[in-house]
Formats: sequence, structure tokens, C-alpha cells
Amino acid sequence: MKSIVRFTICLIFFSAIIFPQVINAAEKDKYPRKAILSDQTQACISCHQKYTPGIVEDWLTSRHAKTIPVDALNKPILEQRISADKLPVKLGEYAVGCYECHSQNPEKHRDNFQHMGYRINVVVSPNDCKTCHPAEVEQYSGTKKANAYKNIMNNPVYHTLVNTTDGIKKIEAGEVILQDASYSTLHETCLGCHGTKVEVKGMRKVYTGRLMGEVTVPDLTNWPSQGVGRENPDGSIGACTSCHPRHGFSIEVARKPYTCAQCHLDPDVPAWNVYKESKHGNIYSSKKHDWNFSNVPWVVAEDFKSPTCATCHNSLIVTSDGNIIAERTHDFAARLWVRLFGLIYSHPQPKSGDTTIIKNRDGLPLPTTFTGEPASEYLIDKSEQEKRFKTMERVCKSCHSTHWTNGHFEKLDNTIKETNEMTLSATKLLLEAWEKDIEDKTNPFDEAIEKMWIKQWLFYSASIRYASAMTGAPDYAAFKNGWWELSDNLQKMRDLIDIKELTKKKKREEED
Amino acid sequence: MKSIVRFTICLIFFSAIIFPQVINAAEKDKYPRKAILSDQTQACISCHQKYTPGIVEDWLTSRHAKTIPVDALNKPILEQRISADKLPVKLGEYAVGCYECHSQNPEKHRDNFQHMGYRINVVVSPNDCKTCHPAEVEQYSGTKKANAYKNIMNNPVYHTLVNTTDGIKKIEAGEVILQDASYSTLHETCLGCHGTKVEVKGMRKVYTGRLMGEVTVPDLTNWPSQGVGRENPDGSIGACTSCHPRHGFSIEVARKPYTCAQCHLDPDVPAWNVYKESKHGNIYSSKKHDWNFSNVPWVVAEDFKSPTCATCHNSLIVTSDGNIIAERTHDFAARLWVRLFGLIYSHPQPKSGDTTIIKNRDGLPLPTTFTGEPASEYLIDKSEQEKRFKTMERVCKSCHSTHWTNGHFEKLDNTIKETNEMTLSATKLLLEAWEKDIEDKTNPFDEAIEKMWIKQWLFYSASIRYASAMTGAPDYAAFKNGWWELSDNLQKMRDLIDIKELTKKKKREEED
Amino acid sequence: MKSIVRFTICLIFFSAIIFPQVINAAEKDKYPRKAILSDQTQACISCHQKYTPGIVEDWLTSRHAKTIPVDALNKPILEQRISADKLPVKLGEYAVGCYECHSQNPEKHRDNFQHMGYRINVVVSPNDCKTCHPAEVEQYSGTKKANAYKNIMNNPVYHTLVNTTDGIKKIEAGEVILQDASYSTLHETCLGCHGTKVEVKGMRKVYTGRLMGEVTVPDLTNWPSQGVGRENPDGSIGACTSCHPRHGFSIEVARKPYTCAQCHLDPDVPAWNVYKESKHGNIYSSKKHDWNFSNVPWVVAEDFKSPTCATCHNSLIVTSDGNIIAERTHDFAARLWVRLFGLIYSHPQPKSGDTTIIKNRDGLPLPTTFTGEPASEYLIDKSEQEKRFKTMERVCKSCHSTHWTNGHFEKLDNTIKETNEMTLSATKLLLEAWEKDIEDKTNPFDEAIEKMWIKQWLFYSASIRYASAMTGAPDYAAFKNGWWELSDNLQKMRDLIDIKELTKKKKREEED
Repeated sequence: MKSIVRFTICLIFFSAIIFPQVINAAEKDKYPRKAILSDQTQACISCHQKYTPGIVEDWLTSRHAKTIPVDALNKPILEQRISADKLPVKLGEYAVGCYECHSQNPEKHRDNFQHMGYRINVVVSPNDCKTCHPAEVEQYSGTKKANAYKNIMNNPVYHTLVNTTDGIKKIEAGEVILQDASYSTLHETCLGCHGTKVEVKGMRKVYTGRLMGEVTVPDLTNWPSQGVGRENPDGSIGACTSCHPRHGFSIEVARKPYTCAQCHLDPDVPAWNVYKESKHGNIYSSKKHDWNFSNVPWVVAEDFKSPTCATCHNSLIVTSDGNIIAERTHDFAARLWVRLFGLIYSHPQPKSGDTTIIKNRDGLPLPTTFTGEPASEYLIDKSEQEKRFKTMERVCKSCHSTHWTNGHFEKLDNTIKETNEMTLSATKLLLEAWEKDIEDKTNPFDEAIEKMWIKQWLFYSASIRYASAMTGAPDYAAFKNGWWELSDNLQKMRDLIDIKELTKKKKREEED
Repeated sequence: MKSIVRFTICLIFFSAIIFPQVINAAEKDKYPRKAILSDQTQACISCHQKYTPGIVEDWLTSRHAKTIPVDALNKPILEQRISADKLPVKLGEYAVGCYECHSQNPEKHRDNFQHMGYRINVVVSPNDCKTCHPAEVEQYSGTKKANAYKNIMNNPVYHTLVNTTDGIKKIEAGEVILQDASYSTLHETCLGCHGTKVEVKGMRKVYTGRLMGEVTVPDLTNWPSQGVGRENPDGSIGACTSCHPRHGFSIEVARKPYTCAQCHLDPDVPAWNVYKESKHGNIYSSKKHDWNFSNVPWVVAEDFKSPTCATCHNSLIVTSDGNIIAERTHDFAARLWVRLFGLIYSHPQPKSGDTTIIKNRDGLPLPTTFTGEPASEYLIDKSEQEKRFKTMERVCKSCHSTHWTNGHFEKLDNTIKETNEMTLSATKLLLEAWEKDIEDKTNPFDEAIEKMWIKQWLFYSASIRYASAMTGAPDYAAFKNGWWELSDNLQKMRDLIDIKELTKKKKREEED
Repeated sequence: MKSIVRFTICLIFFSAIIFPQVINAAEKDKYPRKAILSDQTQACISCHQKYTPGIVEDWLTSRHAKTIPVDALNKPILEQRISADKLPVKLGEYAVGCYECHSQNPEKHRDNFQHMGYRINVVVSPNDCKTCHPAEVEQYSGTKKANAYKNIMNNPVYHTLVNTTDGIKKIEAGEVILQDASYSTLHETCLGCHGTKVEVKGMRKVYTGRLMGEVTVPDLTNWPSQGVGRENPDGSIGACTSCHPRHGFSIEVARKPYTCAQCHLDPDVPAWNVYKESKHGNIYSSKKHDWNFSNVPWVVAEDFKSPTCATCHNSLIVTSDGNIIAERTHDFAARLWVRLFGLIYSHPQPKSGDTTIIKNRDGLPLPTTFTGEPASEYLIDKSEQEKRFKTMERVCKSCHSTHWTNGHFEKLDNTIKETNEMTLSATKLLLEAWEKDIEDKTNPFDEAIEKMWIKQWLFYSASIRYASAMTGAPDYAAFKNGWWELSDNLQKMRDLIDIKELTKKKKREEED
């Protein structure tokens, strides 16, 4: 009964307030679209313009609100922003509104619920976006990004690192006692980027405010969540909103580096920090106001004069006469031959985005051993490396001479080699500490020398490789998180082994 | 006699140079205002356009230069930018120029002086701004910000931390000898944000340049100064220019996050660092060029699509149909229930902005004891916490669903609990170091283990709470200044206690 | 034979594709220039618009593409962007295109080569730019920037620091063994900013892509390279592209702080970091979209309301009525009296930009001894200091009162004194470590206590001075890289001396 009253309240808004507003808006040319809204979407907006105006206004600025899929299909091929060949009849005729997205594949959605007379999914998943954007979802589905939750939670080595880092430590009898990390803290740290497992654990009453009072909604675990490898209530993985945030779905936002910079930053993945300090980043920051971040296809040197992350890694890039320099891809490793960060040694990209399947010679799910031997059967081979390298190189060469480009990548090769050597030096010291029983290898991530070893590869070596790969940020590679730290850290490991040897000895003497 | 000559020189500028310029300016529509300048302000400008053109040009872009207070009073209530009910007659009719502000309340200003025929105050204080903006000054006057100088200089615990950090250390006979910090260095560090004590210590001759030669002006201590708790020569506290800088008084500047970011940044108050890396910050950085930062009232989702600091903390926010989401406030704790940074443990906001009055159970002027017991009688109670929480929550819910918002704040609650526990663990190790006489608790801030303990709460715990509160910056909370450091630091404290125990023992042996 | 075929291919592009394109462009007013291109430049563009469209499009946006030098010469003196009195006849009549720059002074260029029928230099050097911009090249040639390669590579003390920092360390028998740094890594770290030595080591075949196949080009060492002290194949030093990047030569880019920020950033030269957090930086970030970064001369307070690096350090700054506040200079020390970073103690600027000629009382090529005695005969005297100070002060005083400006610089003087004292304290501890044979002074940069000493001056003292010099970033000077670290580091040095004394003793005991 109550919900009928509430729905009536909504209807009053719907007819009395919203419709005139929309007309008004049209009059003053605020939203220059002709796209017609479906009845369902109009109903959604009628209430939500009142309750969550931010969502509605954001959507109104989106291309989804201003066009209909059928028109999108009829664009010249290079200008197309959807990859479907054909569309469900009803979907094609209306603006892509609230209901169009939040009602897809209801049978799969455990978060589908009855809401004001409509069946709604709370979470829109990649599988829903796939209706219009199948190529993108397909490309994405096999990536390390899509598998990011699994790769960190189901890989026992990685899970130990995560747990050791994020778990509460108690002091008991003077000793540091490690507890398991809470999911809530994982959610705010590693899983903030990697994604959480979003499940429906029942229904939940929420108090929405004075007018509408309590509303019953699916009770989702680990929500809100926008990490790249989110596990969704419909069984799919990934979250398109990681990079196409909220309801504006702005390609400008996705192409600007701040989106990637939400997760790819120092000290472990300093892509953004390095880019900012590079010549590319300088030109971007100085001149971006003159560029076009929305054009499809993206015309090199006409729409932009310096690349952003998207330019090199995934956008469709063409010359001003329409020649394709690089195809659009949502497989973010498609132009990458080598892996620079996150693992002990740099190594060829893994064949599968699911890296839990890897086994190295020591039987661990890591792409190399602790001393650097690659688990080659799980990594892409030379010819695949070459293919991906060529794709990236073509982007470089649209602005740089071949000699310039060659010189750049020769330096990167050397940097990978040298940083791997500096990691190996740290590993040797770690092995000494373990052999001398100064630290305990059972958990390789929880003691002081072990943590210094981690910093050697996770922070410093990775930083130097990024600076090299983007041919910028020399000061970053020298003093910020680079060679200075790499060298200092090694020296400090040496000293600490000697020091802890002494304190361990004394402790043992006392215990005897 | 000399000053008459100089004044005449000024008058020549006044009539010959400035007036035509102003008319010129009007002609080319550079300054589209109709506001009439008072005679006094015209006189000021006549010289200062020559001597400090930056000030004059800056002011010319301001609303102060383009409107008169009477018109400002007649605006619809939601659009009003002044809060006075009525104004002194003369003030209302002219643009708010140099003289209008620099001549207020001369009887209170010890920095009032005779300058080219006029009585001028050097410093414009909140008490002067109060003539037109009484509500803002009133709200501000009771805040921690207004009391920021006192809170750091008159609280003996805090003053010890400040002094220990910023004082010169000499090496005598191999020992580190701490000297008191100079006021000049305090001015450039802590007091740069907290504010300095600005007093008149006499008059001073300054050489202004060839044309005007020496001019006699009040000799102010610790000037220039723009910290939020500045103590002014008229006895008032605060500096509106902290956030409304120089003579442009731009609301755009105050609303953009760079203003707050002058003081609220890493490692101790990383509000800006976290915001930048968050989804909110990403959208702000990517799309801000399309938004309106000057509109009053500020319309959610129409003027902006993602909040800045001001949105959540103090601006007047309305929906597009004029419903108030949050009232304007210059009490920056008005929407805050809990205090996240700067103190050993997170705790409810203090009742009074003057925190020197607090006494905890150990008799110290701190809101908790070293082991975390709150000094509850000085802190706001549950019902006040709830009230402030609700105000903030309304802002969130203008763009996010109730379930989403709930999920967010549940994580924050857990984060506060866990970071407090991690601080307590560090405190236990510190107590061990003190008990074993490894470090000396007389000054709890000057030795190595003590400094590690400080970093645990002042840097790392605070950083994690910020990342949680802004539902962003997962990598910041994981590796940058977060859980990685929180865990590593604890382990290092443990090791250092063992190590220093050994060196202390040896030193004692040698002394025997 | 092959090259004739290729050239013919180019000619086809030239006539069939490019010409119509250019006309098209003119029609749609994309490039509103009337400047005529030389035949040679048209030929360059005909191919390169196809092969490196980024370069061509970038150049098309430049002033070089839109004007001819003769017109540039005829501008009112304050508006001139070239400093030559007269120009070679042919150069004056055409747009400054590919060939105009890449064909200068061929007799000096060891990188000159036959390319598609033209003699081309790969590298355009300051000596080439000098044809039109002699004053700038002249001013620059004597600076520390121009000598930056030499100053770091030919100064044995500095070269040891560089080599120790950037060299690979192997672990042999548990010991850290230092190897010489590879040039490739130097190139990506120190020399990324300082510049590399670019020499021709022969010719090299490069595969440019399917259509043109292999092309033979000069094989340059250490290329690409844009550091400020680059040694060029024509024997000149410097790289104008360090600050005027690529082919846009945008004065906006050079005036915006991101350019300086490529090299002047934390932890050793945190100019950008400090600026960002300062009031100046706040106003810049908030309001830059309203300013004019291209106007020549640059009108204070009209074109901009807050300074960028260029404003204070080298741009031609005038008042709105055309009075010169500061002359343009490309000697970046022309407005600097004191040196704040990079050396052990702050000291007066060196007389010569070539600092390898300095000898201090200990016979080392450093401007002070390790304990702070200045090598005064190599440093500018009081009167020169005063002259440079006055130039800078005039810039400050265009927006700030004399009293304000005085107050600011009094604080800076004190900060220099105090940070020098804090460095001296660290030096005393280092001397103790050397005297006690705890560390070995042969290489003063490779062991733990030595590295802490380096951080004291290279990172922390320098940071505090920057924060003081820009009257901003109080939190940076307090906690980020400032007094907190300066004090903590000293305490840690003290502790580590005691600790390493113990481990050294034990090692010696074991060896006996």
C-alpha cells in the first residue's frame, strides 16, 4: 500500500514538474538532443531528478541522452562508437536512458528487484553494456584488468602480500602479531582498484529521506565498487565505470590521464607521476585546452599534439586523411610486449589475463622465480612481442622519426636489464638474511629486510622502467623513486643484515 | 614638506594619467561595471596603479569593483553574497574599493597610519569584512581555524612538537642539542598555515623606489601573513585572505580545491592528494572547464558534476529547482562529526574551536590520552555528531543512492577503528621503549622511536582516513602513505627498540 | 636508384596530396597565415605530412609557420620576438619552415646528410637559432644551464655522486660492489635534464615503414636528447627545445610552469612542488584559463594575476602603460643573487656558468668547503648580488608593497642561515663517522651515513629554501621534505653511527 502512495507521489512529480522542465530545457537549447526517452526512463527521471539530481543531470550531458542507437549504427565506420552489428528493436529507437541500461538481462541479475513498478538491476555490468558494445566487452574480458580481483585474491603469493600489508597488527608481549586484513580495508586499498566481489545477500531497507521514507533495495556486499575486476551480481567481471565514470560516460574523461591516474600512480605504478613530469605531460598540461578529446576517430596531431595514456594504449588513432595508425582496443595489453611493474622482475606479458594459472619452476604462481627465471610457457613469445611492439611503435612514429624512436626503445631495453639486475642484487641479500635465519621466509613479506626487498622491485625498479618507457621524468628516475633509492636501499639492506644479526644473537643468548 | 611634494606627484598621476585610463577602460568594455568609486579610493588608485599595478588590476576584476553593496543587498535571498541586513550609508553607494576596506574601524587598528593625506589600516581583518559579511565572520570566529595560532602556540604539548621539529639542532660533543625554533622559521612552516601574530612595533621607513623614495609605514611583526588563525593588529583573529586571496576575492578561487590544498596536503593532512586521485578529483580535473564556479547559489549537477572541497564542507548548495541541500557556512566543522587528522587518535569533533581548554584524564590538553581514551566532556555528543553527519550525507545523496552512501560511511567507520588500533599498537611499542629507558619521555617528540610513533598517526593513519572519507585514492591508502607504511613502520619500531637497547647498553658499559 | 624511386614517390605526394590539402586548409581558415613556404620546406612537408604528421601539424600551429622574419623585425621594439638586427635575405621572406632551420650552417654540422635531394642537419642547435635570436643564444651560452653537461660530467666530485647513484651494484661474497653507471642510464636520469653528448658515429640504416623502406641517416649517439646542456654535433652547447619543445615553439608552453617542472622538482629541486602549493600557484591553477600566456611584452596584472616561473626569472615584464619592470633574459641567473640547491651549502651565485673551474680551499671543485667556507673569488660579489636582487625585487613590488616584500626576503635570509647550520650539524656527524672509521671517505657518497648527509642538503635544506623563496608551501617546509626530515635525519644519523660502530667492531672481532 505504502509503495503505491510513493509511486503516486512520483507520478505527480512526473507530470507536474519534470515534463515542463524538459520542455524548458529544450527551449533554451540546453540539451540539443532530439532523442526520445522511453516511457520507463521518463518515469525513472521523474523521481530521480528530485532525489538524485546529480545522476540525472550527469546523464543529460552524455551522448547516451542525446542520440539513439540506430543513428549511432548508421555513422561512417571510423566514427562509430558502438560495435554491435544490430540491436534489439526497442533499444534502438530511444535514448539510452536509465531503464535501457538498468533493465538488461534481468534473468541473470541477482540484484534485480521490483522498484516503483519496474524490475531494475542495481548494477549495470559489462555484460549489459555488451548489447551495444560487444567488441569492447569481448576485448576487455580476457585482460589482466578484468581478472584483477581473481589475480590478487586467488593467487596465494599475492594474497599473502595483500593480507600482510593491510591486516591489523597487534602488540602482544612486545611482539607484532599479524591479523588477517578485513574485507572493508581491502576494499579501500587493493580492491579499490582491483574490484570487489559484489553479491546480493538479501534485501535491505534504506531511509531515503523525508518524502519517500524507507525503500527496500537489494543488499549488496562490498558496494559501492568500481574496481576494474569487479565481480558482478550477474556473474560477469569488470566495471566499465572504472574509466567511464558515473552517468556521463564521457570519452573526454576516459581519454584524459586523470582516469588512469586513479590507480596507476606512485609508488608502485607511477605511470601518472612520470607522465606529468615528461615532455608529453608538459605539452598536455600546457595546451590541452586547445585540443579535442571527444572526436572519434581521434586524429593525431590535429585533435591533440601530445599523447595521453589512451593515445598510446587503446584509442583508435588516425591521420588527418583517415589512415589508421592504431585500431581501438579495450585489451590494454594489446600494444604491450613487456610487463614493467607489479612483479619481481620485468618479463614478457602473460598469455592469459588470468595469471593465477601460471606456475614457475619453483611451483609458485609467479611469472618468474625469485631469482628471475621466466615461466616462459605462460608468457607471450618473441613473435607476439614483436607484433605488439610494432603496434606501439607506429603510434610513436606518427610524431617521431624512426631513429628517434629506435633510440628511445634501446634505452628501455637497457633499463629493463639493469633494474632486473638491481632486483637480483636485493634478492641475494634477502637470501642471505633467510639463510642466516635473521628473518623467516615462511611469510616473505612481513619483516624489515623482506619489505626492503619488496620496495626494490615494487617501487623503485618499476618507477625507473616507467620513466624510461615514457622517455621522461629523469629526476623521477634519478632521485624521486629511482636510482637513488635503488642504491640506498641495497646499502641499507646490507647494513640491516649486519645489525639484525647482532640483535638476533643477543636475543638467542638471552633465551638460553 | 617632502610628503606634500609626493602627494602632489600622486595628484598629477591622478588627474593626468589615471582618469583617462579608467574612462578608456570603460570604453573598451574591459571593466563592465557601473559602480562609482569613492573619492578616497580614486586617490588610492591614482598612485597604486603606478606602484603596485598588480593590486589594482586584481581588484578591478573583483565583484567588489563592479557592484555596490546596496545592489548586493537587493538580490534575491539565495543569490546574496553579503549577509548584512543593513549597511553604513556611505559604504553602500560606492564600489568596495581600497579605502572602503582599509579605513574600517580605525580606532581599533594599531596599524592605522597617516598615508598621503588619509588614515589607512595596513591589515584588513575579519572584523572589517564583518561590516558587510557578519554571518561569515561570526561562523568563522568560533572555529578551530580561527583559533589555529593559539591552538598550536598556547598548547604546551603541541608547542613542544612544533619547537622540536622546527628548531635548529647543533652537534656538541657528538650529541644533538635542540635549540628553540626561531619565529621566522615557525612563520615559514607551521604558522604559514596557522597564522602569525601581527603586531605594530613602531614605524618603519621603506624605500619604495626612485619616484616616491622613502615612505614611513607601520612596522608590522611577522608580516606578510595569511594563515587562517592570524592575530591581527586590531585584536581580531583570522584572515579572510587565506581562502579569498589578494584583491580579487574570487569565489572561483575559494571553491577550487587549490585553495584548500595550500595547507591540506600530504604527509599530515593529505586532503588534496587524496581528492586528486579519487573519482571525484578525476571528474573535476577532466571536466572543470565546463563548469560554473561563480554561481550563487551553487546548483548541484548543473554548475558542477563532481564536488570540490567547498561543495561538501561549506558552500550553499541547491538543486536546480532551488531546494537547499546544504546551507552556506564558514564554520568548517559544521558538517563534520569526527576528526580525522592532527591528533593521536581519531575522535569526535571538539565542542570549542579553542582546543587549549581541553584536559584529558592524564591532565594533558589533548582530546584523548596517549592510549586513546577520549576527553568526552570537551567533544561533541552523539546527537550533535548525528546532526552534522546528516548535513554531509544530504550532499552525498544529491548524486548517490542511499545504499551507496551508507556503504561508503560504513567503510569509514571501520577505517577509523582500525587505524586507531594501529596507532595503539605503535603506542605500546613506544611505552616499551620508554619503560626500558631506551628513549626519554620528557620530550615525547625528539627521538627516533618517538618520531616513528608520530608518523604512525600524524602521517599514515590520517592518510588512510582521508582516503576512506573521500571514497577514493585506494593506492594512496595501500602503498603511498597508507597501510604499507603503517605496517612497515610498526615492524621497524620493533626492530629499532631491539637495536637501540643494544647500543644503549654498550654506551652504559663504556660510561661505567 | 632506389632513392630516386623514393623521391619520386614523395613528389607524387607532394603534387597530388599535399598541395590541395594546404589550399583546403587555407580555405577553411584553419591556418590563417599568409606566410609563403620555401620550395624546400614544401618538399619536406610533402613527405613528412605522411610519415610524421605530428611534426608537421605541430609546426603549422607555430608562429614560425604563420609569419615571416621580415615582418617580425618590423614590430614595435617591445613586441619583438626576434633579436637580430638584420637577417639573411632569403630567410626573411619565407615562413620559418623545416628547411630554414634544418639547413643552417651545414659546414659546422657533422650530422648534415643527403636526404631526398637536400642537405639536412638532424639536430637544430642554438647556433642555428642564433640567426634570428642572437641575444637569447648569447645570454644563454654563459649560463649554468648551457654548461650543465660539463658541470656534472667533468667535475670529479659531481661525477662520483652521479656514478655512485646510477651505477649497477652487484652482490659478491655478500658485499655491495659498485660498477660504473652506463651512459644509457645516465641519459635517463641526470643527463635527461643536463643533456647528453650527441655525436655522429657514422651512418645508420633505419626501416621507416612499408612505403619508404630503409633510409640512411646519421647515427647519433645518445639521441633523442633535449637536456639543457646538450653537446651538439655542430660543437655548440644547449638545446632550445628543452623549454620550447618540438615544432610548436609555443611561448605559452615556455611560460607555463610545467616546462620548468620537467626538471625542477622534488626531492632535490622542488621548485614546482613548492610553487603548486603556494598562494601564487593556487591563483595560477584557479584562474589561468582567463589569462594571456602569449602576449609580448607580458603585461603584469593584465595578462596574468599571479606569476609563473618565467615571470620572475626571465620574461620581459611591463606595466599596462608600457613601463619595463624587468627585461627579457635567457640568463636564468640574471635575477638570482644566491644559489639555493644542488650544493652542500647555499652560497652566492657563481661568476661563471662553467663551475668546473672553481677550486675551494680544500682544492675541490666546489663553491664551498664541506664545512661551508665559500670559494669567494669564484662567486659574485655583494654589489652584483645587490644588482640581481633589485631586479627580482622590482617584479615582486609590481604586486606587493615594499614592506611586504622586505618581510619576505628577511625570512629567506634567515632560512638560508638556518638550513646551512642544519647541514653543518650533519657534516659534523659525518666527520665523526669518518674519523671513527665507521664509513670510508674515499667515496663520500656510497655508504648509509654519507647518503643521509647528502639528503640533508640535497633534499631537505634545498626544499626549505625553495618554500621560503616562493613564500609558500608551509606544509612542504614543515613536514613534506622540510624541517621534520631535517631534524629526523640528524637524529637517525646519530643513532646509526652508534649502531654501525657496534657492527663494525663485531666484524673486526670476527676477522681477527
